[in-house]
Amino acid sequence: MSRRIPPGDNLLRWVCDSCSSIHYENPRMIVGCVAEWEGKILLCKRAIEPRHGLWTVPAGFLEKGETTAEGAQRETLEEANARVEIAALFSLYNLPHIDQVYLLFRGRLLDANVSAGAETLETRLFEEADIPWDQLAFATVRNTLTHYLSDRARGHFGFHIGTIEHKTREREAGRS
Amino acid sequence: MSRRIPPGDNLLRWVCDSCSSIHYENPRMIVGCVAEWEGKILLCKRAIEPRHGLWTVPAGFLEKGETTAEGAQRETLEEANARVEIAALFSLYNLPHIDQVYLLFRGRLLDANVSAGAETLETRLFEEADIPWDQLAFATVRNTLTHYLSDRARGHFGFHIGTIEHKTREREAGRS
Repeated sequence: MSRRIPPGDNLLRWVCDSCSSIHYENPRMIVGCVAEWEGKILLCKRAIEPRHGLWTVPAGFLEKGETTAEGAQRETLEEANARVEIAALFSLYNLPHIDQVYLLFRGRLLDANVSAGAETLETRLFEEADIPWDQLAFATVRNTLTHYLSDRARGHFGFHIGTIEHKTREREAGRS
Repeated sequence: MSRRIPPGDNLLRWVCDSCSSIHYENPRMIVGCVAEWEGKILLCKRAIEPRHGLWTVPAGFLEKGETTAEGAQRETLEEANARVEIAALFSLYNLPHIDQVYLLFRGRLLDANVSAGAETLETRLFEEADIPWDQLAFATVRNTLTHYLSDRARGHFGFHIGTIEHKTREREAGRS
């Protein structure tokens, strides 16, 4: 494999030197959800890097053959052994510096049985007042939870889209 | 490279036999927009397969380092030499059978100068009554245009999410 611009293209790609097949690399989707049970929100303490020991909503890479909502449901099952019914898409965050796009849904847990999956140290259903804001793993999670609680308080959930440029600088764009 | 399940994973992946590095394959995003100029909608007649000769909104694979809106803007420039201002996200379609997720925005053209890019045979600004419904390239485009015109008529644009299972069977899910 070597990096060159294939005919008709305008970007460097990995191209096989023997068979000329092109290995395209594109941004990946992270899918997950804000899952509620009787007003409480499911968070998972990460057992893996990055951000080992910090809290996140269940989320992970979308896999081939599944829809974005199915991926969010699967991640919730894998990370928290929790069964969730997915509602609307709630937020989209672009992370162009690491080639990721987060798609986070709203969800309703089918019961309160949650427990740590293989990539999780601990799961917990948090009352709003108890959310560990200074122990959240990612800006995407912090922003999404902030919008979620604000929307819930005003009685109407919107859809939020934004871009996180790097760890400290963020901008929000658009809303519907 | 051979296909096997890496330690701690539960899916078959391509793994290098000599260095054990894993080549993850994940679904890809197609980004594009419904771009308007004075009520008319920009469509492009495809110069490439699949669906050579049929009409589509400008759209293509999201590339590394760009946000979803930037990708939609770039595709509009590449396919129609058109400069567009991107507004809100308008639709998301899952195409799990081909591992794609479409993200289509609403956009406003900065001027009426549009012309065919390298992957386009012809560009045109269509009045609603002239849209070539039986010559559209993809179900994602047909569904998005249908919702767009319906929302525009009622004076409020929503966000639409759905899944296209294969060429003939479709289901719509959710709306906000």
